[in-house]
Parts: sequence; structure tokens; C-alpha cells
Amino acid sequence: MKILTLTTDFGTEDGNVGVMKGVIWGICPDVQIADLSHQIAPQNIRQAGFVLARQVFYFPPGTVHVVVVDPGVGTSRRPLAAQIGDQFFVGPDNGVFTPLYQRAEKGNWPLEIVHTNRQEYWLDEISHIFHGRDIFSPVGAHLACGVPLAALGEPVPDPIRIPWHPPVWHGSRLEGKITYIDHFGNMFTNITKTHLAGKTIQEISLGEFRTPGLVKAFGERPPGTLIALYSSTDDVLFAEVNGSAAIATGAQIGDSVWVQVAA
Amino acid sequence: MKILTLTTDFGTEDGNVGVMKGVIWGICPDVQIADLSHQIAPQNIRQAGFVLARQVFYFPPGTVHVVVVDPGVGTSRRPLAAQIGDQFFVGPDNGVFTPLYQRAEKGNWPLEIVHTNRQEYWLDEISHIFHGRDIFSPVGAHLACGVPLAALGEPVPDPIRIPWHPPVWHGSRLEGKITYIDHFGNMFTNITKTHLAGKTIQEISLGEFRTPGLVKAFGERPPGTLIALYSSTDDVLFAEVNGSAAIATGAQIGDSVWVQVAA
Amino acid sequence: MKILTLTTDFGTEDGNVGVMKGVIWGICPDVQIADLSHQIAPQNIRQAGFVLARQVFYFPPGTVHVVVVDPGVGTSRRPLAAQIGDQFFVGPDNGVFTPLYQRAEKGNWPLEIVHTNRQEYWLDEISHIFHGRDIFSPVGAHLACGVPLAALGEPVPDPIRIPWHPPVWHGSRLEGKITYIDHFGNMFTNITKTHLAGKTIQEISLGEFRTPGLVKAFGERPPGTLIALYSSTDDVLFAEVNGSAAIATGAQIGDSVWVQVAA
Repeated sequence: MKILTLTTDFGTEDGNVGVMKGVIWGICPDVQIADLSHQIAPQNIRQAGFVLARQVFYFPPGTVHVVVVDPGVGTSRRPLAAQIGDQFFVGPDNGVFTPLYQRAEKGNWPLEIVHTNRQEYWLDEISHIFHGRDIFSPVGAHLACGVPLAALGEPVPDPIRIPWHPPVWHGSRLEGKITYIDHFGNMFTNITKTHLAGKTIQEISLGEFRTPGLVKAFGERPPGTLIALYSSTDDVLFAEVNGSAAIATGAQIGDSVWVQVAA
Repeated sequence: MKILTLTTDFGTEDGNVGVMKGVIWGICPDVQIADLSHQIAPQNIRQAGFVLARQVFYFPPGTVHVVVVDPGVGTSRRPLAAQIGDQFFVGPDNGVFTPLYQRAEKGNWPLEIVHTNRQEYWLDEISHIFHGRDIFSPVGAHLACGVPLAALGEPVPDPIRIPWHPPVWHGSRLEGKITYIDHFGNMFTNITKTHLAGKTIQEISLGEFRTPGLVKAFGERPPGTLIALYSSTDDVLFAEVNGSAAIATGAQIGDSVWVQVAA
Repeated sequence: MKILTLTTDFGTEDGNVGVMKGVIWGICPDVQIADLSHQIAPQNIRQAGFVLARQVFYFPPGTVHVVVVDPGVGTSRRPLAAQIGDQFFVGPDNGVFTPLYQRAEKGNWPLEIVHTNRQEYWLDEISHIFHGRDIFSPVGAHLACGVPLAALGEPVPDPIRIPWHPPVWHGSRLEGKITYIDHFGNMFTNITKTHLAGKTIQEISLGEFRTPGLVKAFGERPPGTLIALYSSTDDVLFAEVNGSAAIATGAQIGDSVWVQVAA
């Protein structure tokens, strides 16, 4: 079983995703390819990191995730390949993998990162503006078809990281931030079930919206109700039943959210 | 040949479709997966039913169609698996399969429905808000890889149905409804070639638009012309040549359309 | 290795792309299918030709590209199948393949075109409005699974072509045109690296934007800077670093661009 995913900010209209699949199958014909997202906002490294962190560990061990959100393409930023836990990654060294590094470190998972600069694993001709096609896809295809990570380049001890903050306790109040807004207008936060383990929640708030606690499922409340609940990846999530919490609250990424627990 | 399709209201930006593919390939590595639609309007069960009914019977026998338009996720609504004709289906018991049940009953096709509650075919951990990943995808993968339908759960004699009405004759006038508007602004109706078999059409109308009959192909009329014709699935369709009938007429889903036939 | 791509103006919401995959896998179960683009503007043959010309020659030899941008569906326009270079194509005879014919002729590549009218390679029932499903997909699947091009129909010596103009020299000034605007708002032109080989560029301009020459990569200039550079397929491209040149300049497809070279 060989599986590879693609995550980019390319959109799907120009054929730039399709051409990556052509390059990949030319090198590794029997790999199955899944699109994770191609609607990352242009150059939004943080958004790509968020999507990856939520989804990749549901894939079978050995899956290769090729990530191309790459404003530094053609400059000296390094192309990376990595093993993080039981998954493999290929993409630019710009911080996009930050939450995955954190997860590996927290869980004591395998974490190996190499500077994938061995040109025998690249296409023959390298453009200055589409390393997704010319470098990341071929390297990902070689990884998927069995080239060992260590063969792809020298270890990287100091990959670029971007700030990726946990929530902060102020006495009995936990302050988190909105981190992501999904297709339905559900708003994710950086507060997870782990942060609240063993605590008694008294109130959760976002702007003027206050609720005494978390519900379990959308269907527990009537359509149009604002609720807080755990997401499918155990983040505290604000949602409107059959509606959009983003529209209802006007909140944005970076806004503070608060959880008051029993002292 | 193992084929599985996905139909959801998830959009494609968040990775929630991709993660379902990861789960599926983890269970059934050699299944081919096609996206049917991920742009069903949020919670629009009827729209999903319409897309399914038009498309699924072109797939090879044994194809598994996983459907996740699921406002009741996490409540007591049942997860279903079904054989309908020579196709298989997995999704929530909320009426989304209504037009498929009707088709099977009309054609005396095989129709078996089970409450797929055997947890050995689910993921180990089940969230309250993403059964697409945790239940429907794994069940679909097991079906695609050979688990018999009857092994997945007990028969369901009373699946939920939503109203799904045929057109109505008023003497020599047939009243139908707009049921769906596609990417091009073509407007589908619930009137099909079967309803008009053996009749002589005198006039077809939608609001102020009247036409003496059906044309065969878009190219029979100049760009900008409003026409009525049979869709590729034999529905009466309103269209504007190289344009959008939805914009040109302002008509909406649920609006009445009329066919006058010779008395 | 059997690979097939799909390029259409269907969008992805209605299931019309998915159903083509069902038809294809019904005929050729082990073909891998990549979406090239389904967001070609409705009936925009030129845009589809541009996307194809940029991308298809990165696919492995023998890949079959099925193209359905087909305003003449159901009329007498011919369905075509073709070998162009080491790639295969199936689609309507409406000029969509024009830049590929030009490329083959310029490079003395194989170029064989047939009128694919042998109905044993079509579905049994042919609608008047969805030859993508009924003709082009099955023919593409048969090609991918080994039916020789010559078996599909009679040679076509006179395929339809649409105007596809190179840039024009006015003394030491080369006049090109904006040909395509991509997801990022980057603007492609019909001026390529070949046209400028051996020349010394003095100025490149688009409307009021003037620049003394090409940069190599986006990252050479600060965000918000308008630049000209070679695209990943060696076209002269106008771009805004981390922004949209289309928005910044207001330029449109068909607008003139100029390159002044040393006399």
C-alpha cells in the first residue's frame, strides 16, 4: 500500500495539482494519491500546518504528505523531507510543519528531518517558481516507492519554526485563540480536551457569546443555536447548529476565547 | 475492481474529504475512490439525493457510495448500509436515499437496508461530530473489500424517507417542479421522458418563458436562447445556450413548470 | 501504468465528473485518473487549450487526456481521438487542441488524429448533451486499456483550429498578449523564453507597469512588488509578490505586453 497526499495553495483550476500527479505516477506508478487541500489561502503557512496537524495521523503508516505552500520558492530556503511519527512529509523549510514537530516532541515520536537536496531525486530541469512539480513531487514519489529518508539528504537539526502557542491560564480562566474557520463556519480554538481534563467547566465565551458548557453533538440543540463542543479532533469548537458561527459571531482567527473552570 | 465514491457537504478546503480516503485505504488498500460531490449545500439532504439518483447507476456493479450529509450526527439517527439495485450505499438514515428506494421499488430491484451498528467495522474511537470519518468511511471500506452487507447489522424495514414528489396531471397539463440547478445554471425538473411518452407536446413553460417543444441539443439554437430539452438523464431541463437559464429566468428550486400536451 | 486525465468546464458540484470516472473504471478498471481542471470557464475552449498545453507533456508517455469543453455537443461536430507526441487525447473537434497541434508540428512530433465514431467504443445509449460521459470517457478508457488509436476511427486531416497567435516583433519591440490568469492572479503571456533567446532585455511593460527586466524568483523582491519572470513553463509572466498582479494592474486577457530589447 503506497499512499501520498497533496496539500497546496494552488486551487484546482490551473492544472498545477494535476501535473504533480503526472510527475508522481511517472516515478511511482502504483501510489494512490489523495488531495488533502488545495484551497489553503495563498502563502498561508499557518493554515496549511493546521490542516495537516488535524488530518495526517489518520492515514496509514508510511503515507507520504507532499506540502507546497511555498512563498520562498526559488530562494535559498531548504527543501525538506521528514519522518514524523509513522508518517512522511516533503515540503519547504518555512515553518509549515511546526505543529507536527511539536506533536512528535510531546509524544516522543520518531522525528527525522533531512535537507532533500540530492538532485537525482528531482526532475531533470528545475524551474525557479514551481518546486512542487520539480522537487517536492518527485522526492515524495521516490519516498513512497521505497527510497529511504536518509538517502534523500543530510539531517537538518534546526528546521524553521513559526510561533504556535498553547492557551494560557490566568488563575481559573483559560485564554485560547481562534485558530481556524472551516467550510461550515465552525471556529476551532487552540484549547483541547487535554487542557480541560479533570476540570469543571463553568462558562465558555467568545466575545458576547457565553455558554455554561460543552454539548456533545450538533443535534442536541435546535437549528440556529450557538454552541461549544469538542471537534472531531478534540479541539474546543464554536458552532451554530445548521448555520455558521463565523457569520453569527463575526469572530476572526486570532480572537480570544475563554474557559472559566471551577477554582 | 473495487470502487467507492464520496458525496458530502464538506467542501474540499479543510482536509475532511482527504482524511476519509486515508481511513478507507487503511482498511481497503486497493479501492479506487471517486469524488461525486463535496459541494452539496450544508445539510441539504435533498440535493444530495438528487445528485446520487442521477449518477450512481452509471458506476460498475458493486460500487460503494459513501454519503455524508448528516445534520443528525451524534444523535440517535441510525447509520445505514444498503444494497440498491447493483450498487451499495453507506450513510445516515435521514432520507438522503429516498429517490433510490423509489427507483428500486419501481424497478423491482434488489433493496436491502441494514442498521450498520457493528462496531468492529468502525474506527476504534468515535467522535460525536464526524461519523463520515469514524463510521461511514470504515464501513464503506469493509463493504468494498468484501464484507457482506448482512454482516454489517440488522435489517431496517422502515428507513426514513423525505417527500419526493412526481409531477401532477391537471387534465392535459402536467405540472412539475424545478428540482436542481447545475453548474451551468441549467434547471432540472421532476418531469422525465417517461411522463411524456406517447404524448404530443404543445407548449412547455416556466414563468413567462414559453416554448413549443423540446430541442435535442444546445447547438440547435443560437447562444443566448432559452430552450427546453431532455437532460442526459432524461429529465426535462431548461437551459440557455452558452448561458445560464437560472440567471435568465430568475427561477428557483420548487418553482412550477408546465407541459401542455394534445388532449 | 495506465493514466488518464480529465479536463472539463463542469465544475465539481453536480457529480458529472464523478460519473465519468465510474464509466471509465467500468471499462478500464486499473487506470489511475487525475483531474487536470474542471473549472474551465463554461465553453471556454481557449482556456482549456492553454491549460492542456502547459501541463500534459509532464505526464508519463501513453497518458490519455480526456477533454470535455463542448458547446457543440449533440450537433455534427466530430468526436476526436489523437496521438500528439507521446500523449493521447480524446475530445470534441472544436479547436481545443490547437496549441498541441502547433507544438507537434514545430517539434516534428507524432501527430495522428482520428474521427472516433466507432460506436462499439461508446456507451450503449448516447444522450444529446453529455458526450463526456457517453463517448469521450469510454473512448478514453478503451485507449488507456490498449485499443490502438487507428482502431477508433478514420484519420482526420483537417481538424478544427482556432487562432493561436505568437507575439509580433515591431523592430526591437516584441508585442505579446496576456493569455491566461491563474489562481494567484499571475498573468501569463504568449512570449516565451525562446522568443527572447540571445536578446538583451531593456524593458518589459504591461500598461503603466514598467520593469527593466526579469527576476528569477518571487522571493527576490519584497511582498507587494510587481515583477516579471519566467513561468514554470518558460512563459513571460507578470506577478505581484505574495499578491495578485491581475488585481494590481487591472489587466485582462488579450491586453498587450511589450518587451524592448537592445537593437
